[in-house]
Amino acid sequence: MSENGYPQALGKKHWPFPKLPAGAKCKRCGEQAIVPLPSHNANFCPDCFELFFKKAVVRALKSLKVSTETPLLVAVSGGKDSLALWHILNELGFATRGLHLDLGIPEFSQESRDAIAKFATSRGLEWVTYSLKKEFGLSIPEIKKRLRGKICSACGKIKRYFLNTLTIKEGFDLIATGHNLDDEAGRLLGNLIGHRLEMVNKQYPLLPSPHPNVPGRLKPLFRLEIKEILAYCALKNIVPVKSTCPYSKKASSHRFKKALDRLESEMPGIKRNFLYAYLKDNKHKTQQTFTNTCKRCGQPAYAQICSVCLMKERLF
Amino acid sequence: MSENGYPQALGKKHWPFPKLPAGAKCKRCGEQAIVPLPSHNANFCPDCFELFFKKAVVRALKSLKVSTETPLLVAVSGGKDSLALWHILNELGFATRGLHLDLGIPEFSQESRDAIAKFATSRGLEWVTYSLKKEFGLSIPEIKKRLRGKICSACGKIKRYFLNTLTIKEGFDLIATGHNLDDEAGRLLGNLIGHRLEMVNKQYPLLPSPHPNVPGRLKPLFRLEIKEILAYCALKNIVPVKSTCPYSKKASSHRFKKALDRLESEMPGIKRNFLYAYLKDNKHKTQQTFTNTCKRCGQPAYAQICSVCLMKERLF
Repeated sequence: MSENGYPQALGKKHWPFPKLPAGAKCKRCGEQAIVPLPSHNANFCPDCFELFFKKAVVRALKSLKVSTETPLLVAVSGGKDSLALWHILNELGFATRGLHLDLGIPEFSQESRDAIAKFATSRGLEWVTYSLKKEFGLSIPEIKKRLRGKICSACGKIKRYFLNTLTIKEGFDLIATGHNLDDEAGRLLGNLIGHRLEMVNKQYPLLPSPHPNVPGRLKPLFRLEIKEILAYCALKNIVPVKSTCPYSKKASSHRFKKALDRLESEMPGIKRNFLYAYLKDNKHKTQQTFTNTCKRCGQPAYAQICSVCLMKERLF
Repeated sequence: MSENGYPQALGKKHWPFPKLPAGAKCKRCGEQAIVPLPSHNANFCPDCFELFFKKAVVRALKSLKVSTETPLLVAVSGGKDSLALWHILNELGFATRGLHLDLGIPEFSQESRDAIAKFATSRGLEWVTYSLKKEFGLSIPEIKKRLRGKICSACGKIKRYFLNTLTIKEGFDLIATGHNLDDEAGRLLGNLIGHRLEMVNKQYPLLPSPHPNVPGRLKPLFRLEIKEILAYCALKNIVPVKSTCPYSKKASSHRFKKALDRLESEMPGIKRNFLYAYLKDNKHKTQQTFTNTCKRCGQPAYAQICSVCLMKERLF
């Protein structure tokens, strides 16, 4: 810790929380606190915050009945969430491999690859990178050009598809992603406001494999907020890619997250109570069901041809 | 219309919409438009806006199968919603009587009574005022003092109770209230985020009488936004009470309405699509069910004593 109350080598700019006054005590150990968490009615010192963070992930994994014996492929974008996830899974003793899908976005993708390489080599972690251009025939900017409009929804669909197929190719049954509490609560709010109740009913941090060609999906960070993940990165010297995707600025998912953030600032805890209540409802619901197998690629599909193969047809 | 594009005697201050440029055309008649409605992808001139407003109420009443033959008691607070409601019901040919419950809040209640008297006498409308102090034994400020905290939830419960009993006393089967689209969408969002799904399932603009001592409830303005109601008041020379309830400033209902407003400004139409989708779901659901009759007052209750009689016990 530096003397000014922020973690070393970070300073105010990269620290997501307001500065606590000198004398603010850690709820757990009584030392000087630097992490204010109003939704938990607590302030923490760096060490106790790290413990809090670890406990949130352990609690998530325990409730989902995922033991450290499970080999995990970790989807790694190079952002704060995926690197924090990879780091904590490694600390908890999981055998992991990183999977990065290079989207071919100028500058952003290069910076992402660099952030991953720096993070993983310094920790002796193993990872593999696939290029979307090679796998699909087109990069995200090329797809965007041909679609002539917003790319976020198509990009999401494509990433999901290739993370699925590549996880199976790499010999894993389960893929872990860095989705955090804000992602999950924002998505839930968007689906509720859009009255997509079938999507609301499917949302859960562990989706078992619905088909031999599709791995299960795990979200170990669903109990942690963006700010908490940023603080964890700062304290653990995790340096995520600095820039954000140049295409996602107007994504509607950001809007729902912002709406929840404003409500949270007025009613601390509302965001997590909201998410957990719906997740509890979904605990025993059947998740995905596919009626077909795509005739072209063999992936599960709702129709005779899967949506990515249909997209391919339109794009080429 | 004044020359500056705002309705006469109003000016910019009381006009809820931004000024449209000279030459902006009414979608319906092509004249100069002054009412921009992005959620309807339309701008209107004053006359066509009034027609739009009337049609929204007629459409609501038609869908709820309420004909102009139905005698309606109108709950009148003196605010923009209740006066606009009373005005349009009168214009549509309904036989109405106003019902005002005087809450005994210094200044605010006096101003509310004055606004109602001015509105109703100038239009030859009949109304009746009851005092909460006389009916319940305590005014809202007195209740607030004894509860030592937020009053909004208790006040809502008390108003609901007395509007019910007084409607029956006045010989009506149905009470109409001024709840608008923002009220209903905000309430729905609050209930969804709070995971009160039993409340979500009950929300509908016509709730039939569930008990001989309880009238049906009708919300003819559920298709109209706050801004549209303010503009209607301005154009129809309806002058609502200027001040707002001094106790409601931090009501959580405001927060959910604000959150929806921000989403609406980014995605026009999202608010009404959200509300209508859930209302459609609730169309054929059973509404309220009461298992008991209160032993003290004879009103329907979920337990042996109703919640207002229980509150009375605590307060006195």
